[in-house]
Amino acid sequence: MITQQPGGQVSVLAFDIFGTTVDWRTGVADQVAEIAAQCGAALDAGTFADEWRDRYLPSMGRVRTGEREWVYLDTLHRESLDQLLEQHGVGDAFDEPARRRLVLAWHRLPAWNDAIAGLTRLRTRYILAALSNGGFALLTHLIKTAGLPFDCILSAELARTYKPDPLVYRTAAGLLDLPPAQVMMVAAHTWDLHGAHEAGLRTAFLERPLEKGPDRAADRAADVTSDLAVAGFTELAEALGC
Amino acid sequence: MITQQPGGQVSVLAFDIFGTTVDWRTGVADQVAEIAAQCGAALDAGTFADEWRDRYLPSMGRVRTGEREWVYLDTLHRESLDQLLEQHGVGDAFDEPARRRLVLAWHRLPAWNDAIAGLTRLRTRYILAALSNGGFALLTHLIKTAGLPFDCILSAELARTYKPDPLVYRTAAGLLDLPPAQVMMVAAHTWDLHGAHEAGLRTAFLERPLEKGPDRAADRAADVTSDLAVAGFTELAEALGC
Repeated sequence: MITQQPGGQVSVLAFDIFGTTVDWRTGVADQVAEIAAQCGAALDAGTFADEWRDRYLPSMGRVRTGEREWVYLDTLHRESLDQLLEQHGVGDAFDEPARRRLVLAWHRLPAWNDAIAGLTRLRTRYILAALSNGGFALLTHLIKTAGLPFDCILSAELARTYKPDPLVYRTAAGLLDLPPAQVMMVAAHTWDLHGAHEAGLRTAFLERPLEKGPDRAADRAADVTSDLAVAGFTELAEALGC
Repeated sequence: MITQQPGGQVSVLAFDIFGTTVDWRTGVADQVAEIAAQCGAALDAGTFADEWRDRYLPSMGRVRTGEREWVYLDTLHRESLDQLLEQHGVGDAFDEPARRRLVLAWHRLPAWNDAIAGLTRLRTRYILAALSNGGFALLTHLIKTAGLPFDCILSAELARTYKPDPLVYRTAAGLLDLPPAQVMMVAAHTWDLHGAHEAGLRTAFLERPLEKGPDRAADRAADVTSDLAVAGFTELAEALGC
């Protein structure tokens, strides 16, 4: 199905990471719980992870729109963290080293159960790239620690802006020396696929109903317009003939 | 030895590729021989590979010094190829598709015998990056095809200049979010290590006496000043405690 569309054959699959390939909520909540306990602070770690992530898109949006200069995602995470700790009235409990460790929680997150097996299958036929708003160093740490078999890492940092700015996707295709239509973006978020489509990439929606935990709704396939929509990495490998 | 030097502990090893990690001469000569035979042209493939490579440093030097704008390595390879084919009086034998295939020979080269095993050992303790003058796409193809277990790919293309411009090494350290002294450049070429040292990186000379074939002299350990000098990937892994 994919190869019959205009614009040439897809040879690269570019994967979103947070939420699509790794379970950010479980990983961040577990590390928040551990560090909060060590600091003697009472926090609902799951709620804290949600609130931290809620500040993610708005903080990047200020860079994307030019309201502020380019800053690394780690810096945005740190600013959001500092605000949240104050808001929860626990700022005094978290010293500088604890806050640094919390920011580094985003460098070490568990892969979703189907990710490594699915990527391993897909890698036999496609070039697999990570394409995330995480910085290059963050992604390098995350992918190494989680053992994810990518062929290369591409970060929004290389375009010095953030997804869904079309420049991020075009920079990625340019570095891969391919027309955008020969790259397929795989993501669990409609806003990401919308940006990729704007830049001329193919799109695959990968459903992660539990991405935001059991109590919050994630994007669902029924609400998305994309070239392909799948329930996970296994179905993606099957849909792409791997 | 390495960890006791000032500037912090080395956590990333950055590897040169052509000559250090892969055997460019055998790979290019084999593909030249194959394509020349298909084109009905008589060429000494080994000599042709040598002459092609001889134009490599001068062609990049014109970009590095600002004499010309940034161009991809594939473009430099193509220009050198066109000149060489004319010089050998076989220009008519090689049509456009044959010349494109020849340029792509540099995207598919065999790893040196010790590279995969050595990198696999080193990867248990260090982040392994490719840092080459090859473009990002070229390196992605090369590393995937050769099965080299790198954690990430960094290309001179990301700095839009060429090694040994110190900007290439500094850009790499910056993307890894590390001070230059925590990155060690591993290369078989003194000019590469000199550039890395200028940029503040640690350096490891890796001897490849046959890099330029049996009849030409490669750089030797005795002539090099570096933090470390080894005879190959196995000795590098041992020297770094892996």
